[in-house]
Amino acid sequence: MPDSLTQSQYDTVYNIFSLVIAAQLFASIFMLVSLTRVLPRYRQAMTVAAIVCGIAAYHYFRIFDSFKAAFVTDAVGGRGDYLQVAGAGFNEGYRYVDWLLTVPLLLLELIAVLALARRVQTSLLTRLIPASALMIALGYPGEITGDNGLRGLFGLLSTIPFAYILYVLFVELTRSLDRQPASVRRTISQLRLLLLLTWGVYPIAYLLPLLGLDGADAWVGKQLGYSIADILAKALYGLIIYRIARMKSFADDDSFAARELSVDEAREVRAGAPRSSVPSPKSARARDAE
Amino acid sequence: MPDSLTQSQYDTVYNIFSLVIAAQLFASIFMLVSLTRVLPRYRQAMTVAAIVCGIAAYHYFRIFDSFKAAFVTDAVGGRGDYLQVAGAGFNEGYRYVDWLLTVPLLLLELIAVLALARRVQTSLLTRLIPASALMIALGYPGEITGDNGLRGLFGLLSTIPFAYILYVLFVELTRSLDRQPASVRRTISQLRLLLLLTWGVYPIAYLLPLLGLDGADAWVGKQLGYSIADILAKALYGLIIYRIARMKSFADDDSFAARELSVDEAREVRAGAPRSSVPSPKSARARDAE
Repeated sequence: MPDSLTQSQYDTVYNIFSLVIAAQLFASIFMLVSLTRVLPRYRQAMTVAAIVCGIAAYHYFRIFDSFKAAFVTDAVGGRGDYLQVAGAGFNEGYRYVDWLLTVPLLLLELIAVLALARRVQTSLLTRLIPASALMIALGYPGEITGDNGLRGLFGLLSTIPFAYILYVLFVELTRSLDRQPASVRRTISQLRLLLLLTWGVYPIAYLLPLLGLDGADAWVGKQLGYSIADILAKALYGLIIYRIARMKSFADDDSFAARELSVDEAREVRAGAPRSSVPSPKSARARDAE
Repeated sequence: MPDSLTQSQYDTVYNIFSLVIAAQLFASIFMLVSLTRVLPRYRQAMTVAAIVCGIAAYHYFRIFDSFKAAFVTDAVGGRGDYLQVAGAGFNEGYRYVDWLLTVPLLLLELIAVLALARRVQTSLLTRLIPASALMIALGYPGEITGDNGLRGLFGLLSTIPFAYILYVLFVELTRSLDRQPASVRRTISQLRLLLLLTWGVYPIAYLLPLLGLDGADAWVGKQLGYSIADILAKALYGLIIYRIARMKSFADDDSFAARELSVDEAREVRAGAPRSSVPSPKSARARDAE
């Protein structure tokens, strides 16, 4: 971390951290309040999404406090530079603690909302969750070291489980998507793409010091990158999970759709969404034969 | 406790304590929000599981503050060692207060989720709960003494009720497991094994000073061991209780399963789980004759 920040650098980090707290906390509350807006079978996914945003809000409260304690202004009666306080380093470790808990849960909420057959769920989760925990654990030693060689090495090691997760999500999972209602297939693909794009921000921010960008600007850029990626990868991601759960609820249950939607909306849902999540006897047999 | 910690030792303890707070707090919230995801008859077990994690989160907030108050950095203009503050010792007592409340409750949630006959439950609990309280109470004098002989003596005394608890769980309780639905028997066995493995960490951490390992590294190791064991023995344990309660709910009630699961999942549950928790008149007579 830098020895000093200008007033505008300090304000930028300060305000973005506050934005993340607000986004995560209220996304979490929104999802908890909206639990009954989806069928019970999708509430597990929604609950996990709310918990993820709650955990993130908790850690950003701590990150915010750590940041405030780490810098002190040298201004006397005005605005000036902020100097790092002796012995009160900004604790980057909170991010890793947060990711260690939330990244496996993000994968869990995706699998839960798909409501695949249980053996498929189990098979996916027993590979995705350990891989994601390993990805975070391998990143941490590289993050806290001052040695760029070690940073690169652990960054590389961490990429192996990341690549495996992408393989599972984009190759294996694709086979299961044709069992989803037609109305949500596109949204699920978008969600997967959001995951790829936002998770891609972390290695870029991680590698900034390797590019020689390790001054105050690079540090501020890294905090901005992590913060925005966290909002997209947790709060926006959770809201898309909610949208998928809503659409699947309507596709599964006409009377639920009639209660939750206006007459016009319900008619559109009935017209636009073949109820492919309720397989005909024929397609169920076809699947069992696989 | 050690006179000083290096920066990385300090950071490790600091971050693991924060991790425990997040894990316990959000496991507790998750279980409270998910109460209606199980049949009413299993909500007692889930509520106790949520309360256990809540109590643990409370104590880790206190442990975290106690740790922060106990050490101060000597760094001038940079990161350096942390020295113990005179008169502000880290309060290990919080752990024992926590365990005194939570360990009996952990046994209670296990017995509650099994939903055994009431006289069996009463018989098990009137022995398990006093034994577990005695186990914690006998450990405490050994923990706070500086005398390794006394530590060993109380450690040994504390092992007697621990061994008795293991006898009850692994011998007596086994007789009741054949009354559980086939779908959960394996999970219950895994839960019992988790209990054995995680509870086994405490005596090991407790005995580290006896092995001559009482420097800063051993102290950090002890805090890590206690912390990880607490996450596994309370949060993960509670989530497995939730899983058992879910599976038993589905086995007990087809219409609940149909509401809570997708069409595919519900079919698997019906196919895979003989409803052995609802005994036929014949097996009920056989049981009464035991």
